[in-house]
Amino acid sequence: LAKIVQTDVESYYFGYPVNAAILTCSSQGVVNAMTLAWHTTFSSVPLQYGVLISRTNFTNPLIAESSEFVINFMPAKHADLVAKVGGCSGNDVDKFSTFGIQTTPGSTVGAPVLSAAYASYECKVVDRKIYGDHELFVGQVAAVQWEESAFSEDGTIDLEQVLPTLTLGEDLYAHVSKTVHHPRR
Amino acid sequence: LAKIVQTDVESYYFGYPVNAAILTCSSQGVVNAMTLAWHTTFSSVPLQYGVLISRTNFTNPLIAESSEFVINFMPAKHADLVAKVGGCSGNDVDKFSTFGIQTTPGSTVGAPVLSAAYASYECKVVDRKIYGDHELFVGQVAAVQWEESAFSEDGTIDLEQVLPTLTLGEDLYAHVSKTVHHPRR
Repeated sequence: LAKIVQTDVESYYFGYPVNAAILTCSSQGVVNAMTLAWHTTFSSVPLQYGVLISRTNFTNPLIAESSEFVINFMPAKHADLVAKVGGCSGNDVDKFSTFGIQTTPGSTVGAPVLSAAYASYECKVVDRKIYGDHELFVGQVAAVQWEESAFSEDGTIDLEQVLPTLTLGEDLYAHVSKTVHHPRR
Repeated sequence: LAKIVQTDVESYYFGYPVNAAILTCSSQGVVNAMTLAWHTTFSSVPLQYGVLISRTNFTNPLIAESSEFVINFMPAKHADLVAKVGGCSGNDVDKFSTFGIQTTPGSTVGAPVLSAAYASYECKVVDRKIYGDHELFVGQVAAVQWEESAFSEDGTIDLEQVLPTLTLGEDLYAHVSKTVHHPRR
């Protein structure tokens, strides 16, 4: 079957689904939460995590000023919250009071940790750089807060206990079910 | 329920599942394929894509020399190939002949495109930088080759036609099923 070969590329959902996480940040008394689709681990030792934030985002200067952020991985039962947090700006609303978001303090950072997250990385910014219409912030993971019941002994998520929030783009979310084993050798 | 707060962080599966893609590259007659878990879109306009490669990987100098790579998104029916490509090194084997991998030429790059991929980004490297034990390569997407039947009109993947390959880590893969709609407003 012939494929389409397209050089004028504007769509960016080809690599989806991706984990839709909620990033939290805090600077000088202003706290915000935003939904984040573009993020990945950068290094295993030391553990570093990178996030891409739109250059016009309300969150951008908060991270730049505080040099800290938290990335919260959310269970699919809260996918509606993930969508709504992504659908408005901290310029217009206090998302925490509007959506009744419960938080606990970060252990190493000023930004809050979402109570509903099954895992949260507390990050200290070690690098930042602009790429096109987004800015990369790379954080060193100073601490992780995680629910013991959500993970197996080998460190992988236990899909019997918690389901991740995966978006396909355009307000669509994928449902993840069983685990399949594919040995590498 | 109290969470575990851990500051000595070595595990990195908290943010999984992630899309397990196959990166292809070619330099001076040497062609290789590797499985890649750490990657994300970096910018929408222009469309840029970033990949994290272990500093000791066979692939690393090939990308550095050619300043090109292709990232191939693979259907779950080829998850076994994705696992096996990730389980050996181009130092030891020619993965294309060993696993019978079919390719077609890149339209803008020398690296091959995997025939079985439902979408492939052809990337020209615009930036690189070392983070911990990995190196970041950021590519501008010069072309995308994609199967028309695999995507809906709004650009999202059509899970009725193709299933993505999502890994949880440790040779475990998630099965993605139905799509759920969560409006952002």
